[in-house]
Amino acid sequence: MYTTLKSGLDDILRPIAAHLERVDAAIGEQLRTGVPLIDESSIHLFTNKGKMIRASLIILASGMRGRIPEGIIDIAAAAEIVHAATLIHDDIIDNAEMRRGDVAVSRRWGNKVAVLVGDHMYTRALEVAVRDDNYDLFPELVRATADMVKGELLQIEYSNMERITAERYFEIIELKTARFLGACAKLGAIKAGLPAAEADALKRFGVHLGFAFQIVDDTLDCIGDERSTGKDSGNDYLDAKATLPLINALEAASGPGRDELVRMCAQPAPEHWPAVREAIRVSGALARCLDIAREYARRAVGEIDGFPDSECKRIILRLSDFLLERAY
Amino acid sequence: MYTTLKSGLDDILRPIAAHLERVDAAIGEQLRTGVPLIDESSIHLFTNKGKMIRASLIILASGMRGRIPEGIIDIAAAAEIVHAATLIHDDIIDNAEMRRGDVAVSRRWGNKVAVLVGDHMYTRALEVAVRDDNYDLFPELVRATADMVKGELLQIEYSNMERITAERYFEIIELKTARFLGACAKLGAIKAGLPAAEADALKRFGVHLGFAFQIVDDTLDCIGDERSTGKDSGNDYLDAKATLPLINALEAASGPGRDELVRMCAQPAPEHWPAVREAIRVSGALARCLDIAREYARRAVGEIDGFPDSECKRIILRLSDFLLERAY
Repeated sequence: MYTTLKSGLDDILRPIAAHLERVDAAIGEQLRTGVPLIDESSIHLFTNKGKMIRASLIILASGMRGRIPEGIIDIAAAAEIVHAATLIHDDIIDNAEMRRGDVAVSRRWGNKVAVLVGDHMYTRALEVAVRDDNYDLFPELVRATADMVKGELLQIEYSNMERITAERYFEIIELKTARFLGACAKLGAIKAGLPAAEADALKRFGVHLGFAFQIVDDTLDCIGDERSTGKDSGNDYLDAKATLPLINALEAASGPGRDELVRMCAQPAPEHWPAVREAIRVSGALARCLDIAREYARRAVGEIDGFPDSECKRIILRLSDFLLERAY
Repeated sequence: MYTTLKSGLDDILRPIAAHLERVDAAIGEQLRTGVPLIDESSIHLFTNKGKMIRASLIILASGMRGRIPEGIIDIAAAAEIVHAATLIHDDIIDNAEMRRGDVAVSRRWGNKVAVLVGDHMYTRALEVAVRDDNYDLFPELVRATADMVKGELLQIEYSNMERITAERYFEIIELKTARFLGACAKLGAIKAGLPAAEADALKRFGVHLGFAFQIVDDTLDCIGDERSTGKDSGNDYLDAKATLPLINALEAASGPGRDELVRMCAQPAPEHWPAVREAIRVSGALARCLDIAREYARRAVGEIDGFPDSECKRIILRLSDFLLERAY
């Protein structure tokens, strides 16, 4: 069950649990307008708390050289709100029924409200960042948000299996996932007043971790372990998302087997998923993908070698391990 | 035809035509990513140029006390991009077929792309504002964007005719339209380095003009003069938007006539529009609405009384007149 992943994370993040509670409260405050429709639909995704990886990364990065600074809560809340807004818009796009164990915003309130409530959340989060007395936070958050959206559009542009390559895949996940995690780590560093070189090292840490995280996620989607992801397998395939395991399997295939695989990917259908999954399995792509993820995680950890031992550093290292280990 | 409105505007804006041409070029540059899907869908709405009222207001406000500053083009382009993004998301929401005389983005590329391309345009425009060396521009643009989205959500919340009041209507159009025009005028003033008191006066000018503009627009939608709006009549009614003429007619009605009107508004249908329009007409609501719009325009003009005579001031006054006169 999904709770296994969550409880594993909860253990690791226990030392910052009080901070995360405050982030949760700040999210509610930032989103509240007094208009029932807006308030209920914008807070909906936070009813079952998400993993709060982005908020955690901001908080932990900010504590790499001393106390976690007081003002970190609002920016951590803003990052979680931006992330939730992308999920709400994603669920419109993927016509999803469920999200975080509850009905998707677009299903409960319709696409109209989901489009606007996502827009509302983006702009509210950016307003919070603007209000911060540190002028460097805001450009970082806007750029990361812009990259994320561009990554999603690239994913649509290259959903055609004949055109996608591993290179494009890495470009997509860099924009869609890695840079936002990198920005989170850097936001924490900026807020803590760390020197620019250290803020950049933390950003690279987050980017590499983001690559590792997304590759593991995409690999788990082929394995379909509900324990690890809280989701069935094959969602990416059915949403016409070309992920690394599939690209890797396609590259390894040849002849009629390859043609058949391309054909099944061009018209994703639930009844083809078992055959696609089997093709991925026999190609050995899953092990190759996890090797690549491991290499990214190794590079991530290398980026923060220079920081002295601290509680936040120990947690951040355990978090990196955990996000990878969930695949085993 | 729509071109009558456009050519009237073109005449008034001729002195800043070269600036508007540069804004148009800057829009293309700001949106360009090199990814065909993104570039084609994001520029689509600009193929048939819009009225560029927001860009014009920024440019004209910046020239109220001297030369139009060099750096005005990018922020004017950013405001037009934000406006276009709201139109793209609106067209998803209203399931619109046409926009600016061409097929809507959501019809041509589907809702998936339309959601994301709107997000892309919002974030790109905000990035441009962030890059400006004037730190006061950005918060103004973010806040105005946030207000606009909140106004759209309020409009959905109060689309039920039993709950809408004139007070709510004014709240909605303030958020949805007036504050953004106010922000445009202020952005121009900030960029030109005008004193805060003058920037605020220009903002109030824009807000009042925005009220007048929206009320006229909503009134024209009941009259349905294609010459003035480029649209058929009754669009707001069919989109379940409660506009001032309708609210006014409802307030004036009583007995079974009122019940019938409420019933037709609860289930908007093209075949009911002639009866709804007739009810609005006989109530005298149209004249009352135009009186209110005229009063807003008068207050708008009063706000900029203190500025010395200049070409930009003369154009801004003619523009205000024109936006009102198109209703006669």
